[in-house]
Amino acid sequence: MREALQQAMLDALPKQHSYPEINRFYNYLHDYPSRSGKLIRGQFVLLACEAHGGNWQDALKVAAALELFQNWVLIHDDIEDDSDERRGKPAMHRSLGMPVALNVGDALHVYMWQLLHHLDMPNDAWRNVLYEFETMIHRTAEGQHLDLSWVEQGRFDISEADYLQMVTLKTAYYTVVCPLHLGAFVAEKVPSDVDAAAIDMGIAFQIRDDVLNLMPDISYGKEFAGDLYEAKRTLILAHTFQHASSDEKVELESRLAKPRNSNTQEAIKTQEDVNAILAIINKHKSLDYAQSVAEERASRGLAVMKTELAKLPNQEASNKILDILESLATRKV
Amino acid sequence: MREALQQAMLDALPKQHSYPEINRFYNYLHDYPSRSGKLIRGQFVLLACEAHGGNWQDALKVAAALELFQNWVLIHDDIEDDSDERRGKPAMHRSLGMPVALNVGDALHVYMWQLLHHLDMPNDAWRNVLYEFETMIHRTAEGQHLDLSWVEQGRFDISEADYLQMVTLKTAYYTVVCPLHLGAFVAEKVPSDVDAAAIDMGIAFQIRDDVLNLMPDISYGKEFAGDLYEAKRTLILAHTFQHASSDEKVELESRLAKPRNSNTQEAIKTQEDVNAILAIINKHKSLDYAQSVAEERASRGLAVMKTELAKLPNQEASNKILDILESLATRKV
Repeated sequence: MREALQQAMLDALPKQHSYPEINRFYNYLHDYPSRSGKLIRGQFVLLACEAHGGNWQDALKVAAALELFQNWVLIHDDIEDDSDERRGKPAMHRSLGMPVALNVGDALHVYMWQLLHHLDMPNDAWRNVLYEFETMIHRTAEGQHLDLSWVEQGRFDISEADYLQMVTLKTAYYTVVCPLHLGAFVAEKVPSDVDAAAIDMGIAFQIRDDVLNLMPDISYGKEFAGDLYEAKRTLILAHTFQHASSDEKVELESRLAKPRNSNTQEAIKTQEDVNAILAIINKHKSLDYAQSVAEERASRGLAVMKTELAKLPNQEASNKILDILESLATRKV
Repeated sequence: MREALQQAMLDALPKQHSYPEINRFYNYLHDYPSRSGKLIRGQFVLLACEAHGGNWQDALKVAAALELFQNWVLIHDDIEDDSDERRGKPAMHRSLGMPVALNVGDALHVYMWQLLHHLDMPNDAWRNVLYEFETMIHRTAEGQHLDLSWVEQGRFDISEADYLQMVTLKTAYYTVVCPLHLGAFVAEKVPSDVDAAAIDMGIAFQIRDDVLNLMPDISYGKEFAGDLYEAKRTLILAHTFQHASSDEKVELESRLAKPRNSNTQEAIKTQEDVNAILAIINKHKSLDYAQSVAEERASRGLAVMKTELAKLPNQEASNKILDILESLATRKV
């Protein structure tokens, strides 16, 4: 299933052009999609289609389009966050320059829509799929805007409610809510009534990811404390700021605000900065707090999911969805 | 017609959100579309629809989508070229920061597709419109890639053939070829057989734009010699490089390669640099050469256009298209 999905994604991209530089451009389009991602969101689409009584093969192109979405967004995200790496290799803008990478992301975005426009599906189901993608990308861009606007404004003292709004829009829709809808639409069914639970699961997944990033003994594929180097806004930091003394807030802000990389004389963030930030986080037990919120959301979300997905015609597929959701929200690595 | 088009474009954008920062995001989506552009490409769609016997009102949303395309591309172009201004105001990334502006461009891109997905049109015509937008954006991104890759590689000695390939893809498709197709599709007709002529007109338009930029006595809304400050690849420069001595090439490359702005200690491009580049351009009569190519393309393109558009049912609209094309390719301001 995973291999077929990966192939369907690459099949949607152009292969060759007689003009050498445009041929190189086509190769760049294949770059991120060829780096082995987990393809979890696409697999949710396939499994949701099966769970609703459809054939997962019929959902392959829709699932591939969702993975193409993930890839063009990652190219643009990496530019926006000036990330160093993606899936173990340099971020695209680091190797090709920001302008070329930005344009590759735009082109990939259009190949995503092209795949969707050429679907061979009944008209109503097809329109549902198109509209779901619109909604999904709108919500994701709005969540991304919240995150980026806080960075732009140098704001670290965001509230827990702000954080939850951001992560709902930026992560939960395209990771859980919309994939489940899309699978149902391909099966020509009404999606299960699990949006609120799906948002809970998406939130739990993101918080768990953020907690893992600050656990030094765990190797889960991302750099330890990379989120602090990038000054990523997390529930952990929101909690720390909520409970920090005035002096601690000043210290946190000055250390977090230092850039990770710099072309100028500006001081960059050091290991000492990160250790000092971690010390304040630990003092206020913010990791424990975030973990408890993740567990609460996961348990609430899973309970609803179990009840609702039990009503679907294909229980084997439903159980696979539940297993993946549970492992995402509680994963150790 | 122009006012209705402008309104249709703004009507496609979201208006209000209860969360203040997302409401600000919605305002940013309106920013470039609200700056008064010429809307020439959208008007071509409307006139082409009329020329083929349709009602221009039926093409309003398609024309508005084309203008939304222009706007999101401009936001991303301005980032890629690090432009200072757009339509008399600071470029979006200058006022909001690059990350926020990039994300606004992505969201605007989706509102463009959303407008197209919700068209109320016969199925065949609708699919033609969707596919035309795919082709148009693919070609534009490929042309943009050529341009950006030359910048990234520090290449200035591009051939005339390279330049013409780039400008055909980057400008001619979305400015002339595709708008004429789109209007015909809305009128449920086969487009006139004028693609090659439309490419000639698009090339003439772009070369004329580049020539005007280097004519000191002309005020046409853009900064004199801004293209040299930004080291834009033009037919003018291609011609100069083709005829320059080795010493002149070295001088041109070192002066052109200086950045317009710099955060580092790197020397920026001065008025003296631009004057020296202009002196070499003038010595080789490259402006005259480029102007002659523009005139040749315009006259060849217009001749074919006149013959073909004369066959269409609405001659008043056909003549308006010809008038605008002629004025674009030969404009003085």
